[in-house]
Amino acid sequence: MPDDEGHPAVGEIELGSVLTALADPLRRRVVRVLAAEPDGTARTCSSFALPVSKATVTHHFRILREAGLVRQVSRGNSRMASLRRTDLERRFPGLLAIVAAEPEE
Amino acid sequence: MPDDEGHPAVGEIELGSVLTALADPLRRRVVRVLAAEPDGTARTCSSFALPVSKATVTHHFRILREAGLVRQVSRGNSRMASLRRTDLERRFPGLLAIVAAEPEE
Repeated sequence: MPDDEGHPAVGEIELGSVLTALADPLRRRVVRVLAAEPDGTARTCSSFALPVSKATVTHHFRILREAGLVRQVSRGNSRMASLRRTDLERRFPGLLAIVAAEPEE
Repeated sequence: MPDDEGHPAVGEIELGSVLTALADPLRRRVVRVLAAEPDGTARTCSSFALPVSKATVTHHFRILREAGLVRQVSRGNSRMASLRRTDLERRFPGLLAIVAAEPEE
């Protein structure tokens, strides 16, 4: 079962949910940015400077979190997101590399 | 430019369109079935026995064709679909293997 914050366990990460999450260009941008950072990097959602409202940013991160692409944790007053690189590589080898290789729009 | 039937050239195949096409479970089923066949296999759309109306089948194959996942050609009175395996492997190495590995629902 997903944990209290909606993170699926690694074995629960489903291809359909991951592909649906990655079908959106802004969500791919988040994954691409995180994939280019050192493993374990955690960033605030606002640091991605997505060109949408705060509510929409929250929505996009919920989709990413519930699909199993990012892990979100609270640190002080901030909500930080990191890429579930190892889990994703185990479930869908090569998928992150494909997303990371997409040219910036 | 895409050809008269809406097939993008290999260099025009875009990750966003491919992921959008693959986000749907019935479209993934078509790709998974074709990926399990010998390279170059062409099948009629009806042979996939998708549990939806003929109009919806046509819609799904249009999405797959315009994304660059399948190539559709007319043979006599039939419309045959084949997987663009080489083109996809060139653009997004490993993606077909990920889709092919998904368990049947």
